[in-house]
Amino acid sequence: MSEEKKIPYKIYLDETEIPKAWYNVRADMKNKPAPLLNPATMKPMTAEELSEVFCKELVEQELDNENAYIEIPQEIRDFYKMYRPAPLVRAYCLEEKLQTPAKIYYKFEGNNTSGSHKLNSAIAQAYYAKNQGLKGVTTETGAGQWGTALSMACSYLDLDCKVYMVKVSYEQKPFRREVMRVYGASVTPSPSMETEIGKKINAEHPGTTGSLGCAISEAVEVAVKNPGYRYVLGSVLNQVLLHQSVIGLETKAALDKYNVTPDIIIGCAGGGSNLGGLISPFMGEKLRGEKDYRFIAVEPASCPSFTRGKFAYDFADTGMVCPLAKMYTLGSDFIPSANHAGGLRYHGMSPVLSQLYDDGLIEAVTAKQTDVFEAAETFARVEGILPAPESSHAIKVAIDEALKCKETGEEKTIVFGLSGTGYFDMVAYEKFHDGQMDDYIPTDEELAKYAAKLPKID
Amino acid sequence: MSEEKKIPYKIYLDETEIPKAWYNVRADMKNKPAPLLNPATMKPMTAEELSEVFCKELVEQELDNENAYIEIPQEIRDFYKMYRPAPLVRAYCLEEKLQTPAKIYYKFEGNNTSGSHKLNSAIAQAYYAKNQGLKGVTTETGAGQWGTALSMACSYLDLDCKVYMVKVSYEQKPFRREVMRVYGASVTPSPSMETEIGKKINAEHPGTTGSLGCAISEAVEVAVKNPGYRYVLGSVLNQVLLHQSVIGLETKAALDKYNVTPDIIIGCAGGGSNLGGLISPFMGEKLRGEKDYRFIAVEPASCPSFTRGKFAYDFADTGMVCPLAKMYTLGSDFIPSANHAGGLRYHGMSPVLSQLYDDGLIEAVTAKQTDVFEAAETFARVEGILPAPESSHAIKVAIDEALKCKETGEEKTIVFGLSGTGYFDMVAYEKFHDGQMDDYIPTDEELAKYAAKLPKID
Repeated sequence: MSEEKKIPYKIYLDETEIPKAWYNVRADMKNKPAPLLNPATMKPMTAEELSEVFCKELVEQELDNENAYIEIPQEIRDFYKMYRPAPLVRAYCLEEKLQTPAKIYYKFEGNNTSGSHKLNSAIAQAYYAKNQGLKGVTTETGAGQWGTALSMACSYLDLDCKVYMVKVSYEQKPFRREVMRVYGASVTPSPSMETEIGKKINAEHPGTTGSLGCAISEAVEVAVKNPGYRYVLGSVLNQVLLHQSVIGLETKAALDKYNVTPDIIIGCAGGGSNLGGLISPFMGEKLRGEKDYRFIAVEPASCPSFTRGKFAYDFADTGMVCPLAKMYTLGSDFIPSANHAGGLRYHGMSPVLSQLYDDGLIEAVTAKQTDVFEAAETFARVEGILPAPESSHAIKVAIDEALKCKETGEEKTIVFGLSGTGYFDMVAYEKFHDGQMDDYIPTDEELAKYAAKLPKID
Repeated sequence: MSEEKKIPYKIYLDETEIPKAWYNVRADMKNKPAPLLNPATMKPMTAEELSEVFCKELVEQELDNENAYIEIPQEIRDFYKMYRPAPLVRAYCLEEKLQTPAKIYYKFEGNNTSGSHKLNSAIAQAYYAKNQGLKGVTTETGAGQWGTALSMACSYLDLDCKVYMVKVSYEQKPFRREVMRVYGASVTPSPSMETEIGKKINAEHPGTTGSLGCAISEAVEVAVKNPGYRYVLGSVLNQVLLHQSVIGLETKAALDKYNVTPDIIIGCAGGGSNLGGLISPFMGEKLRGEKDYRFIAVEPASCPSFTRGKFAYDFADTGMVCPLAKMYTLGSDFIPSANHAGGLRYHGMSPVLSQLYDDGLIEAVTAKQTDVFEAAETFARVEGILPAPESSHAIKVAIDEALKCKETGEEKTIVFGLSGTGYFDMVAYEKFHDGQMDDYIPTDEELAKYAAKLPKID
């Protein structure tokens, strides 16, 4: 115990300890993630085809299944210094509250204005765009975390940033929109009348409040039609998981300082960028047979792509303009209950994580929304930080595992990713307090209906 | 230059370096701040009288003009570990943007869920209440930062927390209210029908949207009438400045590590808790003749208590139930333009800072609202952090001073307090972007009208 007490509440690394290279878990995977397919030909996307939509350097990273380490350019490391290294926190207060013998740690990625880990990849993608001599980038955003992060990165690099924001969020979340304006981004409610696809959707569905799928299609159209622009995406892609590996690398470095080896590593999973980033270096050790860990992905019961989806090729967007990816998916038309508060609403899942899950290297569980908010509130009251609804899925399962340890008396070490803060999610907390939050879970019939529409490939 | 580059972007202290004692600047002041007066007798408040409203230990701290250091109890230090030491940031990116030879540092107090430095005193006040065996505390809140901080502290210590929130804020800032609910506080719109003073005001002014003065009176009434409750306050008082000295002590310790001596120290000033906390240990050196510094208080042009107020005894609240304090004041009826975005709307100023200002030891300047938001946006775009409107007053003047250095070529070291984040102030940013922010400055006639109503004492 005296040994243990030497571990501080927050383990901060020195800024010279910010990783110098990202770790590419694909290099250590025996079964590589399946390639992206061209929606027109259904053949693997070539680097040239991908370069029409994405920046060149990012295309290389997207396709690189071999190199384990990819150097982080100094300019990106300098930007990281603004908010990294992120603290690894020993949850002493939560442990005491739960009266558990488990040792709980969380990697906190919310200490920046975007409020989440999204900034780690936003600055990388913006940097390569700038480096290629581009004028700007386009993207879509739903809840607004990714759009905010990208706006910050583009503002820093003096790069134009066009964000297509799902119309219902644009209207209901004016604060996120306003943060993006502080950082000089143009924010357009989607579907707009600025794009062909937007006009078409507005004509077909007058008064529509939009969807993420439509916003993606608009952002891609604008990127392809405007010279000097490319499209960027905040999750799912291999390149995003690569950039997010800084989360896991810092976590591992901090634990190593105190000779701590985790037993269980837990993260929430929507598109997979946070979970993938956190577990990557640990998964590398497991893949190389050096160590063993339990990895748990937590997804909302309302959008259970790992636990109830199919492992199949599917479209990334509703408009079917993006490449197809082989992933655990509920079908590209699937949209979770509108009453679902947080993010984690994406129908698919990172191809890397999908392959690892299919290979039995990751476990997955679901959590119901009200249980997640209860865990969030318990956490906030003892640890201080008001967590994002997304991150609170990981909190919920970390608490569950710690309570199991209480029953068995095991002193397991649990690490979870606290990917962001909930300051812009107070409407959801209000619903929770007022008992107006539902726990809708899709029926098997519903899921079967969407699964039946999956494209037939092979 | 090579020497200088060794200074990291963020200077983090180790958590063992969190100050073990608060520094009480009054001990080194030749002219002590004037005592509080009992509104009924106009005589100095005794410890016994103060103890009816405040906790015993806090009364001692309020009256202690002699002891330079007051030990911070271990429990408070443990709580501080949740979010302290706060980083001292070298603003390399801002310096480059301004092309100034000045070296700029800021102490960032926004990395906690309350979003500001208020938590430093909230936990101290809650701790002493708990220690005295009280059931709970009452307070008022306007914009909601103090109420949030107190809610967090009370939740941690399992102490009841009753917040009276100015009705117009309660209705227009539901998110702040909701954060307080996460932390289990009861939040009542003021004026309420729960107190005598609330009923009276509602009867006299049907449909009133409330004021800070009224909310203070309600909170004090509830504290006095309910056994086991005391009233707590987030600024102005001597005890609050004492607790906030952790800001300055950490700042000084971080600068000392790199042998940096500031030339100018800048803070925004409303009630004075942030500025007072930041400058305290440096002011101590100046008072003892060991070193010299320029201290600059920045107040909004709309509420210029230092620069255009009187140094006189005045009421702390509109209801005139609280003790009178000798301070720079615009008169207890003065309320700045409703269009003014941030906090810093208090009519008076900390008695400690008022005395120091009257003794010529602090300078004061005003800043216009739109200039402040322009500075905020410049800062956000290069330094990443979205600042609170209050803190942005300090940014504005730090930039002004850095630009003066650019003209003269002087390599001055400027330190300013970044007391909080602006995540709950996006309505103000929106007004700024939409050109709907005004720069109202009270006329001399207006100020004379309020000054004429100051109580005649002596």
